[in-house]
Amino acid sequence: MPTLFKKTSSKTGLSPGTLVHVGERKSESVTITVMTYDWETFVERKVRSVEECLPCKESPTVTWINVDGLHDVSVIETIGKHFGIHPLIQEDILHTGQRPKMEDADSYILVILKMLRYDDNADKAQTEQISIILGDNFVISFQEAEGDVFEPLRGRIRGGKGRIRGMGANYLAYAILDSVVDHYFVVLEKWGERIETLEEALTTNPKPETLQAMHNLKQEIIFLRKSVWPLREVIGGLERVASPLVSDGIAPYLRDLYDHTIQVIDSVETYQDILSGMTDLYLSSVSNRMNEVMKVLTIFASIFIPLTFIAGIYGMNFDFMPELKIWWAYPALWGVMIAVAAGLLLFFKRKKWL
Amino acid sequence: MPTLFKKTSSKTGLSPGTLVHVGERKSESVTITVMTYDWETFVERKVRSVEECLPCKESPTVTWINVDGLHDVSVIETIGKHFGIHPLIQEDILHTGQRPKMEDADSYILVILKMLRYDDNADKAQTEQISIILGDNFVISFQEAEGDVFEPLRGRIRGGKGRIRGMGANYLAYAILDSVVDHYFVVLEKWGERIETLEEALTTNPKPETLQAMHNLKQEIIFLRKSVWPLREVIGGLERVASPLVSDGIAPYLRDLYDHTIQVIDSVETYQDILSGMTDLYLSSVSNRMNEVMKVLTIFASIFIPLTFIAGIYGMNFDFMPELKIWWAYPALWGVMIAVAAGLLLFFKRKKWL
Amino acid sequence: MPTLFKKTSSKTGLSPGTLVHVGERKSESVTITVMTYDWETFVERKVRSVEECLPCKESPTVTWINVDGLHDVSVIETIGKHFGIHPLIQEDILHTGQRPKMEDADSYILVILKMLRYDDNADKAQTEQISIILGDNFVISFQEAEGDVFEPLRGRIRGGKGRIRGMGANYLAYAILDSVVDHYFVVLEKWGERIETLEEALTTNPKPETLQAMHNLKQEIIFLRKSVWPLREVIGGLERVASPLVSDGIAPYLRDLYDHTIQVIDSVETYQDILSGMTDLYLSSVSNRMNEVMKVLTIFASIFIPLTFIAGIYGMNFDFMPELKIWWAYPALWGVMIAVAAGLLLFFKRKKWL
Amino acid sequence: MPTLFKKTSSKTGLSPGTLVHVGERKSESVTITVMTYDWETFVERKVRSVEECLPCKESPTVTWINVDGLHDVSVIETIGKHFGIHPLIQEDILHTGQRPKMEDADSYILVILKMLRYDDNADKAQTEQISIILGDNFVISFQEAEGDVFEPLRGRIRGGKGRIRGMGANYLAYAILDSVVDHYFVVLEKWGERIETLEEALTTNPKPETLQAMHNLKQEIIFLRKSVWPLREVIGGLERVASPLVSDGIAPYLRDLYDHTIQVIDSVETYQDILSGMTDLYLSSVSNRMNEVMKVLTIFASIFIPLTFIAGIYGMNFDFMPELKIWWAYPALWGVMIAVAAGLLLFFKRKKWL
Amino acid sequence: MPTLFKKTSSKTGLSPGTLVHVGERKSESVTITVMTYDWETFVERKVRSVEECLPCKESPTVTWINVDGLHDVSVIETIGKHFGIHPLIQEDILHTGQRPKMEDADSYILVILKMLRYDDNADKAQTEQISIILGDNFVISFQEAEGDVFEPLRGRIRGGKGRIRGMGANYLAYAILDSVVDHYFVVLEKWGERIETLEEALTTNPKPETLQAMHNLKQEIIFLRKSVWPLREVIGGLERVASPLVSDGIAPYLRDLYDHTIQVIDSVETYQDILSGMTDLYLSSVSNRMNEVMKVLTIFASIFIPLTFIAGIYGMNFDFMPELKIWWAYPALWGVMIAVAAGLLLFFKRKKWL
Repeated sequence: MPTLFKKTSSKTGLSPGTLVHVGERKSESVTITVMTYDWETFVERKVRSVEECLPCKESPTVTWINVDGLHDVSVIETIGKHFGIHPLIQEDILHTGQRPKMEDADSYILVILKMLRYDDNADKAQTEQISIILGDNFVISFQEAEGDVFEPLRGRIRGGKGRIRGMGANYLAYAILDSVVDHYFVVLEKWGERIETLEEALTTNPKPETLQAMHNLKQEIIFLRKSVWPLREVIGGLERVASPLVSDGIAPYLRDLYDHTIQVIDSVETYQDILSGMTDLYLSSVSNRMNEVMKVLTIFASIFIPLTFIAGIYGMNFDFMPELKIWWAYPALWGVMIAVAAGLLLFFKRKKWL
Repeated sequence: MPTLFKKTSSKTGLSPGTLVHVGERKSESVTITVMTYDWETFVERKVRSVEECLPCKESPTVTWINVDGLHDVSVIETIGKHFGIHPLIQEDILHTGQRPKMEDADSYILVILKMLRYDDNADKAQTEQISIILGDNFVISFQEAEGDVFEPLRGRIRGGKGRIRGMGANYLAYAILDSVVDHYFVVLEKWGERIETLEEALTTNPKPETLQAMHNLKQEIIFLRKSVWPLREVIGGLERVASPLVSDGIAPYLRDLYDHTIQVIDSVETYQDILSGMTDLYLSSVSNRMNEVMKVLTIFASIFIPLTFIAGIYGMNFDFMPELKIWWAYPALWGVMIAVAAGLLLFFKRKKWL
Repeated sequence: MPTLFKKTSSKTGLSPGTLVHVGERKSESVTITVMTYDWETFVERKVRSVEECLPCKESPTVTWINVDGLHDVSVIETIGKHFGIHPLIQEDILHTGQRPKMEDADSYILVILKMLRYDDNADKAQTEQISIILGDNFVISFQEAEGDVFEPLRGRIRGGKGRIRGMGANYLAYAILDSVVDHYFVVLEKWGERIETLEEALTTNPKPETLQAMHNLKQEIIFLRKSVWPLREVIGGLERVASPLVSDGIAPYLRDLYDHTIQVIDSVETYQDILSGMTDLYLSSVSNRMNEVMKVLTIFASIFIPLTFIAGIYGMNFDFMPELKIWWAYPALWGVMIAVAAGLLLFFKRKKWL
Repeated sequence: MPTLFKKTSSKTGLSPGTLVHVGERKSESVTITVMTYDWETFVERKVRSVEECLPCKESPTVTWINVDGLHDVSVIETIGKHFGIHPLIQEDILHTGQRPKMEDADSYILVILKMLRYDDNADKAQTEQISIILGDNFVISFQEAEGDVFEPLRGRIRGGKGRIRGMGANYLAYAILDSVVDHYFVVLEKWGERIETLEEALTTNPKPETLQAMHNLKQEIIFLRKSVWPLREVIGGLERVASPLVSDGIAPYLRDLYDHTIQVIDSVETYQDILSGMTDLYLSSVSNRMNEVMKVLTIFASIFIPLTFIAGIYGMNFDFMPELKIWWAYPALWGVMIAVAAGLLLFFKRKKWL
Repeated sequence: MPTLFKKTSSKTGLSPGTLVHVGERKSESVTITVMTYDWETFVERKVRSVEECLPCKESPTVTWINVDGLHDVSVIETIGKHFGIHPLIQEDILHTGQRPKMEDADSYILVILKMLRYDDNADKAQTEQISIILGDNFVISFQEAEGDVFEPLRGRIRGGKGRIRGMGANYLAYAILDSVVDHYFVVLEKWGERIETLEEALTTNPKPETLQAMHNLKQEIIFLRKSVWPLREVIGGLERVASPLVSDGIAPYLRDLYDHTIQVIDSVETYQDILSGMTDLYLSSVSNRMNEVMKVLTIFASIFIPLTFIAGIYGMNFDFMPELKIWWAYPALWGVMIAVAAGLLLFFKRKKWL
């Protein structure tokens, strides 16, 4: 899990602004797709080199350049040069262990956040860094690998559904962020299901595996919380930023997005509280069961050990043991033993151990 | 319990502002009731379609439109169109997993909060989302299902009791909020009773079921706390909002409502602290009882196991065991055994185990 | 303990501002006492009806009207009418489950807080709500029952001791608040004594009752903390309020009062920390004792069970057991058994269990 | 430890500003020492009455009046009268359970704080209240008893070392505060040593006494933290105060003092975290040892109890037990018993209990 | 670990601003190295005395004076005199137990922080204090000993790589800070590896040593957190400082550095949460194993103790025991014993203990 920091050290000592891809190489090749649209027109294509998409900078249409794969540093460098992106910001984009952040660089706004996807095979949430550059009439998004949560958004642009084709680049940036945050709810839902399953296991048949599963979920939440917490200030900052890039028209949308973010954080906190309560319950049910085990042992031992002692007495081979000769001694001893056992049972009954 | 998030994912990928009802379908049909009143007049009726209640928009009387049931999206859409409600706000109203919020949209104010009702059968609190639109001379309230906590309020309007018939729409909105918050105290009271019952069970006869019941109450509080916490900022925001819709006259009422909200939050926190203290007490009483069980076992075993060994010695069949021939050996052995037992009892007495 | 919420529900559904006494009926009849004084004059009397004390409103002397008992709503209503007190504030005064608060209503200032008294019989702190209305030249105080912490203050007024007779109504209000907060220290002191007693019990002879007593004190503190916490903002608010009713002259007194309040809160927090540390110590001492019990059991059982087995062997009745015939077999076996026991004792010694 | 509150109640009901010494009578008689100095001159003397040191008020030299012992109220009253100190502030000086505070009274500044000294005999930190009045050209300090941490400071003044003789009264006040805070580090160091000793005891041979010692240190820190926490605002307030008494020249000194205060608070927090981690470790080491004890018991009992049973079988006296007649039955039984024991040992080995 | 405070007391009582080296003497001699550079020129040399590097103060080039070793107070004093550094700041530089801080002294800015290095032999992080004085065209850095994390930075200056040779002294100061913070990630990475190893040990074979190792890591993190936490305000303060020494050009670099600092703090918090979760898991796995041990004991004891008792009965030597004469009594007893054992096994199976 702390793999995040494994690669960071490879960068230690380099000049700030030196472009090195920090992170796992998640995709084979870098893919660039460009979408250009306004209310009437729509063009979508895959481009080989960044230079192909430069004309769009001058066009009045909205352009969305999506870069999948960060390991080819030259691609980011070329984009940086053409779109005037500060080297430190290029560095941030390449460094996939980045904390979510928002930065207003006058001619563009950078938003870095984490895209969560639930990997059903591993039954755990996966995280991927996504960086968004919002310019005057373009949005550039950088992802670590192909495959994302934006297909429905692309469908809406292609089909001209909703208001997206009639809005500017800032609405596109908002729609991208909204898709990302929407997917957080999918992860929350999966976690919610796991919590439900665990809660049920806890009340019916708690096993050490249940505890381990609760522990794993807890650590997963702790680790991903780091990606979600800073979102509050990122989206809040975006709402408050005094930049012409963020027009008044999208203020309600950003506020809505902010509300969703708060809701995500609230839910994560609630999950943590619930899991913590469940751990307490597990621990006390372990204590309870131990108590029961001990009671069984104590009752058996306390009843039969004295009886065995009595039987042992009359198993002794002394020559002079007058009781042994009396014909009613044996049944009488049975009586004594039954009385002792009954007395002890009564004693345990009184103590409410039975 | 995390059913809240189950339905959210069905909305992922849709365009923001797309109207989809997110939540359980709690009522069969959508019911719209309209109350129109001022100091002299009062009309109450059930309407079939939203259009019927449009004339009231122009009238100087106060109108309260109450919509029960959110699953028919077209109803909300029609209301939205006629009363000029932003699509994102319509979406919020339909999304029943909403966090409590307040939004000032100039021509109207939206307040979303949770209505709590204590279900005595399930012995737990139920939550229902209620959205309130406060306009110039109207209030529209949206509920998930029929049945609410507003009957006493309706009675006051019908009977002309109190000052409500002489006040404007904002007082009506306040009165609705006040009814909701007042009902929180009913839930708090029920929780208080459950805590009292548990506390008593804890001091007289703590059982694993007691722990489970404490756990359930804790989780219930954690989950509902999410609905109550944001109320502080919602009501506080309403108090501070610089809108002509909120006149100075109702400021003391809102302050009073705010005080109640703080009191609810305080009580929830107190309950959590008390429950947490009770869990600690339960756990230590489990330890205490275990201790007692162990002491009983130890005392029995430590006394009789050595005695049984002594008896075992003289049960051996060696040909040359001179003690067996001595006539006073048997009574002497009894003496030894009683001495051993007494010595051990003294030892345990000294250790304060008896 | 959550009796506080029991009565609240009886008010649910009533119009805001409806006057209903919420709380236990603590006194039989409502008593009104009036003190009127300035530097030279002093009059004290019990009045039958509120109207009797109206003339003092016009007089330049300071008047203190003290109302004991809240169950007669008409008394509060009459006072409210004559002194121009807002219905919502009258409601607050009657609702004894109120959170401490301060409100500046221009012509008067309301302060509601809790008076703590230590009930030595029940050995727990009792809480009573007290509401103070500070007007231009009068102070009205409302208490739930007769009997209060103000006797020394009354004595100072009667005897003309200190500066009180020469100061205005706001100094009187301060003196009342000061008396209340001073009494908090008495309760803190009693709690301190209980903590000391418990701490001693913990180090000498911890018993389950000690734990229960710690738990009770903890819950008592949690519950009363609710009354004390909001005092910080109440007194702080009073210090900062921009009202002519609070003159500059009493600023140092209010600052002093504020310091005392902070000190109370600090002490309550310290007590909670100390109690929490004591609970941890208790729990670990339980574990320690359990450990000791187990060691005794283990040592006894581990030594005598093997020996009993050896004795059991030679108690068998096989026809062919050559050892039984050997004359030195019996003493030799004793040797073996002593060796086994010694070896085990040495083993436990090495493990530091002895 | 809560002796702090024992005496407070003796003051309840007195008029605010009434001078009563609240606290333990730590010194026999009140001693007043006066130091008067500037760059060239230096006079030090013990005075009998306060009046003797009044001329210094007019002189341009810096005067330090130090009062040891607070039980003689008249001394403080006389000083108060001559130096114009508000009665409430005189009260604060006399009340030794005071929370550290700073107050700017225009003509002088009051600082109250706690002086910590480590009592090596009791092996615990002792606290003493010290109040400092900073006037135009004088500093008055009040201590509970003789004996303080200012000897080195006095030495510097006497010897004219450092810059102190060339600076004003505010530098003297700073130097006094600095001496007090410097001594906090001595206490921290002693605590650090105790923690180190405990940590070592914990890893080598944890005993119940170790736990008790950790508990005592924890309570000591909790209790003294109350004295240290408010220092942050006291010194911070002194730094920010807009008084001509605090000249710009000593700003860097105050900032330095503030840094030290933060460092003290940081260290106290770190100690608490470390102690809390140590308690956890102790508790789990107790669990671990219990586990080991149980394993030993279980192994012994589980092996020998079945064997004893087998031996018991052939100790029975039935007339018809054919096995008893067979000559190889006895050695065969030995074989069986060894096999059973070996099997059980293997079983425990597999479970990693051996 | 609290060695930090050991030396502080040696300073108690000295005049503020007295220069005494507080800390361990880490290096043998004081080494001063000077680097002077601009875009074209670069000179690096070791100097004997501080005076040698004075000419650079007048030159337009950037000068980096690095001092290794703090025990020779005269060196710092000489530098202080020549560069106009306040005695209190010199004192701070010499006091190695300093809390990280930033101070703007108009003609220069002081930054003190901790340099972390991971000592692979001791397998723990080592801390060293580094103080940086940023002047108009020079940077002076003070370290406790030779050997630091700046070699790559020096390499960049020597080789003229990156933009450093073209930037001013403030960029150099930033680059030094950046190197220090970059190294924090190396330590974080090492801690991450240790956590991973512990986590694995925890799921496969938890041993008391695992717990001890977790405890050690926890204490290490608690202790070093003290060095990292204040960095947020140090770097944040540097970003906001209104000094001509910090030009606009380096604002984005400082913001970047600030982001890294926040990331470090986030990670430390995450580590603490993860470790705390692991401790809980360890403790419950101990409980689980104890439970298992107890079950084995209980099953063995509960089955064989009653059986031994039965065998004991027929080992008694009474003259009149009719059962002993019956030929089928012995096999019948075997049947009874097998039935008892089977019944108990079934009982335990039902209880899910098997």
